[in-house]
Amino acid sequence: MEGMSRWSPNARGRLEQAAYELFLDQGYEQTTVADIAKRAGLTERTFFRHYADKREVLFGGSAALRDELLRVLEGLPPALPTIEAVRVAVEAMSSLMNGRRAVARERHRVVAAHADLQERELIKRATLTAALAQALHRRGVPEPTASLAADMGMAVFYVGFGHWLDDPADRELVEIVHEGFDQLKAVASGT
Amino acid sequence: MEGMSRWSPNARGRLEQAAYELFLDQGYEQTTVADIAKRAGLTERTFFRHYADKREVLFGGSAALRDELLRVLEGLPPALPTIEAVRVAVEAMSSLMNGRRAVARERHRVVAAHADLQERELIKRATLTAALAQALHRRGVPEPTASLAADMGMAVFYVGFGHWLDDPADRELVEIVHEGFDQLKAVASGT
Repeated sequence: MEGMSRWSPNARGRLEQAAYELFLDQGYEQTTVADIAKRAGLTERTFFRHYADKREVLFGGSAALRDELLRVLEGLPPALPTIEAVRVAVEAMSSLMNGRRAVARERHRVVAAHADLQERELIKRATLTAALAQALHRRGVPEPTASLAADMGMAVFYVGFGHWLDDPADRELVEIVHEGFDQLKAVASGT
Repeated sequence: MEGMSRWSPNARGRLEQAAYELFLDQGYEQTTVADIAKRAGLTERTFFRHYADKREVLFGGSAALRDELLRVLEGLPPALPTIEAVRVAVEAMSSLMNGRRAVARERHRVVAAHADLQERELIKRATLTAALAQALHRRGVPEPTASLAADMGMAVFYVGFGHWLDDPADRELVEIVHEGFDQLKAVASGT
């Protein structure tokens, strides 16, 4: 059984792990796809079945975040207040990061060191926010409520994410995001 | 007096006007600094006293927005609730756009047509948001309140900006932003 792990469906996770190790050891620019595949004990061909290029290792997770956000939102009762619907969906999305803080920290260090990756991170946030606003439109939420609620939900997620990376209490992101929605309400009401 | 207007201190405004006319007539890429200077009846040398390149014509206004935002915020009484301080400062910043909707629309059309300019717009928003959060820290506002309030204020500004460009009632941006803060509170409280 052990030998089979080389060919297991976890190739994607092993490539990701290998990539982050190399980005931190020898730098993002200096790391090639061949290096990543070798470190993971896989072929380049296998790498390209999972990622278009090494940059996609850093941003490949955003589709899963978006899918979870929209899947949960679309299943919620229409009568739920908009901010509550956003809260449930953003918390569900946040729970995908459970147990992934070490990887998220490494990723953050790589992205923070490269202006072009930081730009791509901003694009990712804008794309996710626009997808959320569109999903709220489909629920019948009018403007400007839909756009404001989408921006607020994403603000709670990203502010929470930043604090999660260095949280001394070692909580999961979803707990920090849950508190963040309470803090958002308190800020908005001027208390 | 009329002849003197060629050499007036409004060279920057005339260069901006000429640049937008050319961007729309012949495309952003096809427009050179020489074209802009010629259309404005000024020299290239004068252009470069005001702008580093043609791209800066599109983004040169962001420093004025940031300066007004921070100037107003720093003059507000420390006891003001954070969201009210953000509101007053963002409304003051918005009032810089009074009477400038036609220019803002042209700018928006140019930026929307170019992925690299849209990216720069996202960077501008992120920079402005970070400057606001830092100014709130200087007021003694703790985290995550400072970051959440900065994101919320910028959400009201940018969502309002988008609506302002096509507002059938022809209101000023500052009026739309003023209403936007009420809508933000309503969304956050779940009403």
